[in-house]
Amino acid sequence: MAVEMEEKPVIKLAAICGSLRKASYNRGLLRAAMKMCRDSVIEGIEMEDIDISELPMMNVDLESNGTFPLVVEEFRHKIRGCDAVFFASPEYNYSLTPLLKNAIDWASRPPNAWADKPAAIVSVEGSGKSGQYHLRQIGVFLDIHFINKPELFLNAFEPPKKFDDNGDLIDEETRKRLQDVLLALRAFTLRLMKGKSY
Amino acid sequence: MAVEMEEKPVIKLAAICGSLRKASYNRGLLRAAMKMCRDSVIEGIEMEDIDISELPMMNVDLESNGTFPLVVEEFRHKIRGCDAVFFASPEYNYSLTPLLKNAIDWASRPPNAWADKPAAIVSVEGSGKSGQYHLRQIGVFLDIHFINKPELFLNAFEPPKKFDDNGDLIDEETRKRLQDVLLALRAFTLRLMKGKSY
Amino acid sequence: MAVEMEEKPVIKLAAICGSLRKASYNRGLLRAAMKMCRDSVIEGIEMEDIDISELPMMNVDLESNGTFPLVVEEFRHKIRGCDAVFFASPEYNYSLTPLLKNAIDWASRPPNAWADKPAAIVSVEGSGKSGQYHLRQIGVFLDIHFINKPELFLNAFEPPKKFDDNGDLIDEETRKRLQDVLLALRAFTLRLMKGKSY
Amino acid sequence: MAVEMEEKPVIKLAAICGSLRKASYNRGLLRAAMKMCRDSVIEGIEMEDIDISELPMMNVDLESNGTFPLVVEEFRHKIRGCDAVFFASPEYNYSLTPLLKNAIDWASRPPNAWADKPAAIVSVEGSGKSGQYHLRQIGVFLDIHFINKPELFLNAFEPPKKFDDNGDLIDEETRKRLQDVLLALRAFTLRLMKGKSY
Repeated sequence: MAVEMEEKPVIKLAAICGSLRKASYNRGLLRAAMKMCRDSVIEGIEMEDIDISELPMMNVDLESNGTFPLVVEEFRHKIRGCDAVFFASPEYNYSLTPLLKNAIDWASRPPNAWADKPAAIVSVEGSGKSGQYHLRQIGVFLDIHFINKPELFLNAFEPPKKFDDNGDLIDEETRKRLQDVLLALRAFTLRLMKGKSY
Repeated sequence: MAVEMEEKPVIKLAAICGSLRKASYNRGLLRAAMKMCRDSVIEGIEMEDIDISELPMMNVDLESNGTFPLVVEEFRHKIRGCDAVFFASPEYNYSLTPLLKNAIDWASRPPNAWADKPAAIVSVEGSGKSGQYHLRQIGVFLDIHFINKPELFLNAFEPPKKFDDNGDLIDEETRKRLQDVLLALRAFTLRLMKGKSY
Repeated sequence: MAVEMEEKPVIKLAAICGSLRKASYNRGLLRAAMKMCRDSVIEGIEMEDIDISELPMMNVDLESNGTFPLVVEEFRHKIRGCDAVFFASPEYNYSLTPLLKNAIDWASRPPNAWADKPAAIVSVEGSGKSGQYHLRQIGVFLDIHFINKPELFLNAFEPPKKFDDNGDLIDEETRKRLQDVLLALRAFTLRLMKGKSY
Repeated sequence: MAVEMEEKPVIKLAAICGSLRKASYNRGLLRAAMKMCRDSVIEGIEMEDIDISELPMMNVDLESNGTFPLVVEEFRHKIRGCDAVFFASPEYNYSLTPLLKNAIDWASRPPNAWADKPAAIVSVEGSGKSGQYHLRQIGVFLDIHFINKPELFLNAFEPPKKFDDNGDLIDEETRKRLQDVLLALRAFTLRLMKGKSY
């Protein structure tokens, strides 16, 4: 029995990138995180890249008796089914991107798919650092449990070069920091899962 | 000459609604404000309702050598040409709507069309009051000069009834509060225009 | 052994009021919460009212080799020793009171006494709702785990009367809401404690 | 008469430092700004260093029929009499210092001494950048008109060395940035003054 108790469940982690740009550095961070999980650099996380680019612009008039457009239903289903969320969230003009806010709003419609999910945010810095705090404040209403630390704001323009021309992460120190975020998210997710089931 | 100096210029006010809903109360507020200006309840403001519903989802890859998709160019042109901005901004999940953030981001691309514009925000309250503060913080980066007062957060669900079934404003006290916002915005806009030209 | 594991530990809850006013409604909320725990309306919480009125104004020059003024040491000791924190936090000018910020800053000095503490905030509303969000944002840096829900912003000026002339809570619905905050904090604290020890 | 109108008034600028530390870098920034104005590197600004260290901890019970403790009265008088405000605002734990919040709250008591004042903020960065945004949000309620740009967040720990052992500013680039803040504040203050008197 002790053995069973010590087995750690595999965490299903939904990965969401707030940028549509092909060479997005935020997407580069997300790809690097996916690879760490896939290659078992970090064990116990199954990370899925959730596409949010096809969602229509948020409009409650598109709902009908609690039914959503198909692409929205599928997205909501994926969020509901995950154990935790990883946001690669660029900052545009001191806030979230509209793309990410749109996805958040769709999945928030009752019943709120984000409820009680642990989450982490990483950002390639834009103009400042407030984008992540807007997201955290949104999380209060949506009942998302963000890890507090480590915070990862990456300045892509300070040497050394962080990404290659394909937008792939090439900097070891950043990879280490990204790994620390994933480890903290895994630990907090397990803690919340186990504390609950206990 | 004194006479000319005392003539107040007509302010071109861009009106932007953050909701796509047909019966949106925020749109109802915007319509009520438009009517006040059109009927000269408030003089000296020419208010134009700017459509933001057709803008594509923000993606810098859609720019090419500083050229934007046509619908974006037209939108940016209108913002550049206005003297001040009136936002009817719903709060979704403690922040802006993605629709409004999308419009803001497109017009922010260099050269930033929002620079040095006075502005006001009115909101039919959603869950809280932070949506307006997110917008104000965005305004720091975009160099928008928001009036501080009066703040207008309208709770549509407290009696008396504020809107009829078409979403048209029917409450006199709210109309008065809305009028006060427009008067404060007009005064601040004139002050900034005249202080500059002086 | 299974029996012992199922026993719920008593949570040591530090209660902090951000107001110095004698008839403070926020203090009234805190007293009502203390009474609920003392009278076992809510079981399993041992709440202690922590005095922060004697702390000197924050000034790192008062530290000497990691030693603090005695009153600060005692305060830090109490925060370190608690399992969770209950803030009765008035909003002054859209933010925290200086009294509360001062206490927070003293206990944050290394080693940070707030680290990994679950917490809840209740407020008698002042001008708005941003005071709680400033506190939550501070909590990101200090690694405080705030419960998301329920949020309690109390408007003391709407009927029915909430407090008597001594500042004591007399409204049953408010008492119920306050109780819900304590229950949610207790549940989240146990979840985090058990998830960790597991 | 035209000549008189073109004369620029001297701006009375209240300077407030949020730190009590002797070697405070934020105080170093403030001193450097004072010196620029005194030595007429920047003309037309008379800057006064306002002491806030002796104010009692905010407590409305200390007011009596609209009368404040003497030291508070004097402080309020100075704020009322200035044309604009310069805040050297350290960030402690992602927000303002209690010292600064305390001064702000005292001067906000009716009649609000901050009303309609232009202002600027400079900060030696602590943990992040949110302290300035908390201050800006407070300014909405107090009707302070903060300049949007340039924002000055100074990282004192990145080379080159910014301050000497006395906490005096020694970095030329920082001096230039500080000068740009003062010039922008002067321009915005004149614009608001003239737009009003016009």
